[in-house]
Amino acid sequence: MAKSGSETPRSQPTIAEIARLAGVSAPTVSKVVNGRPDIAAETRAHVLKVLHEHGYRQKRKITKRSALIELVFHELVGVYPIEIINGVERVAEEHHLAVVVSESQGKQTPRREWIEGVLSRRPMGVIPVFSDLSVEQRTLLADSDIPFVVVDPTGVPGDDVLSVGSTDWLGGLSATRYLLELGHRRIGMITGPSWALCSRARLDGYRAALDAAGVAIDRALIRDGRFEIEGGLSQAAALLRLPDPPTAIFALNDGMAIGVYHAASQAGLRIPEDLSVVGYDDYLIDQWLVPPLTTVRQPLRDMGATAARMILDLADGVEPRSKRQELATELVVRGSTAPPSR
Amino acid sequence: MAKSGSETPRSQPTIAEIARLAGVSAPTVSKVVNGRPDIAAETRAHVLKVLHEHGYRQKRKITKRSALIELVFHELVGVYPIEIINGVERVAEEHHLAVVVSESQGKQTPRREWIEGVLSRRPMGVIPVFSDLSVEQRTLLADSDIPFVVVDPTGVPGDDVLSVGSTDWLGGLSATRYLLELGHRRIGMITGPSWALCSRARLDGYRAALDAAGVAIDRALIRDGRFEIEGGLSQAAALLRLPDPPTAIFALNDGMAIGVYHAASQAGLRIPEDLSVVGYDDYLIDQWLVPPLTTVRQPLRDMGATAARMILDLADGVEPRSKRQELATELVVRGSTAPPSR
Repeated sequence: MAKSGSETPRSQPTIAEIARLAGVSAPTVSKVVNGRPDIAAETRAHVLKVLHEHGYRQKRKITKRSALIELVFHELVGVYPIEIINGVERVAEEHHLAVVVSESQGKQTPRREWIEGVLSRRPMGVIPVFSDLSVEQRTLLADSDIPFVVVDPTGVPGDDVLSVGSTDWLGGLSATRYLLELGHRRIGMITGPSWALCSRARLDGYRAALDAAGVAIDRALIRDGRFEIEGGLSQAAALLRLPDPPTAIFALNDGMAIGVYHAASQAGLRIPEDLSVVGYDDYLIDQWLVPPLTTVRQPLRDMGATAARMILDLADGVEPRSKRQELATELVVRGSTAPPSR
Repeated sequence: MAKSGSETPRSQPTIAEIARLAGVSAPTVSKVVNGRPDIAAETRAHVLKVLHEHGYRQKRKITKRSALIELVFHELVGVYPIEIINGVERVAEEHHLAVVVSESQGKQTPRREWIEGVLSRRPMGVIPVFSDLSVEQRTLLADSDIPFVVVDPTGVPGDDVLSVGSTDWLGGLSATRYLLELGHRRIGMITGPSWALCSRARLDGYRAALDAAGVAIDRALIRDGRFEIEGGLSQAAALLRLPDPPTAIFALNDGMAIGVYHAASQAGLRIPEDLSVVGYDDYLIDQWLVPPLTTVRQPLRDMGATAARMILDLADGVEPRSKRQELATELVVRGSTAPPSR
């Protein structure tokens, strides 16, 4: 947005331009700009010269920061959080940063004590995972110039919020389309809680695939399993008791798919001969289920790594090209899916 | 060790004694001694008065510390690390400390960059998990007065090293004894790597139970599955091909037990009718296996919490009653074990 009535100053060179002029990579220029230690003295001197010649000024005053990235989860249970931590850790380590892990005890918004701790530690940035910050928390972080990037936001994150997710809608679409291609027409759907954005997007992908194939959406086939194994079991059992039961069930996480396996077994149905099952996540255990589970792979490590890189860019004054980054999901076909027998 | 030839000074009161005299808890006295913020002003004043009256001096000069506890894992994969983090987190949060999580990229000893980071952050203490510190790393921490407590040490930790484990030997003993009581005499054993102390202790428990029951130990029945699902599968397959195969297999983690399930299925054996299986860990998935897995529960969260409390005590100058703490394991009997059919 150009200011009217005042002369627009010649924009200063970007880090990418300086990098090109200096014949080095953009991260190298960033390191020099931010006085990072992990760079050769000769390279630093050369880059500083180019920066000086081209009038580069830092956009953002560098406040004193701890060499920390903060992660906060709603709960530290199961494989999901460790995969995110793993991805963040890789990037943090490359940049000599430590990773702080907190839990908001099952709550979707971290507690007051958490934000007080963050403000006192002054990290490079904050990554709330499957959580949302309150307006007050966002304001406090902004006042302290601490950027944050939400991974897998539970609600619509808002225009000004940076977030990383995966292509949930496409994931829902591709799994459903695969079942349609196998010949299934009655496809049961077990969702996560309705407040979870990722679950809503996957469900909409399911609806879109059915719609595109001209298959009417039967609301009796769509049930909420709360992302829990028990929920997958009970909702699958209810689906299989319908007068016209589904020939396939798509569960929106792998835990619920394990519940579907149990419901099928209790109903005397074989997978995939009598019932096809698709999950969502692709945890290690999936390939060891009997039969191995067809599922949608979610790139959790890459999501963590991407969020960490966005934090580092922001600390360097580099705005991300997009407020929202969605990484690709992938359908992994294994033994739990087959054409319907009826 | 009393110095000979010099008068032993009257020992100063312990924190426990001060707590009794002041009518408050020992942790409250610790908080006052260490200038923690989370205590009422009136209580602080009262405790300070009692401390002063009874000539309490701090044993340890309090150096400037960050409100951090550091965890370092050899790898951030699967449920094991998240359970430990969860336990440490609970204790850290109560004491307004943040938890830093690092990974030493599969290596059993953290790298040099890690110790440099720790020394620059100056945490309250360090918890290496299933890892061991080098002599140099230990010396550097000691020089900086940063205590460390090893969780699940891979090697014998040494007399001067504080560590937290669980009753691995008893865990191995109780599971084997249970199989013996069911009537099994040929019990296959799939171990973790021989350098892992926990695996050795569990194996010795197995040997002790057999010995106590007068059952000869057959070395052909003991195999190393490297704590991996694939290892469990291949070693169980080898055991089942023996001329006189086992009627039960005890795998020293749950992942390998899942491998045993697959080997049994491939050999056309039903669990528990044709083969009993016992695992070790008690992860959530165990109760959802078909049949649900009999296993030895390892209190991972409590192990993390105990190590964190030891760090806090050490920071307060309170030496632990024991250099090594072993928390109780528990045999959890489910559907994968039955009397032998032959």
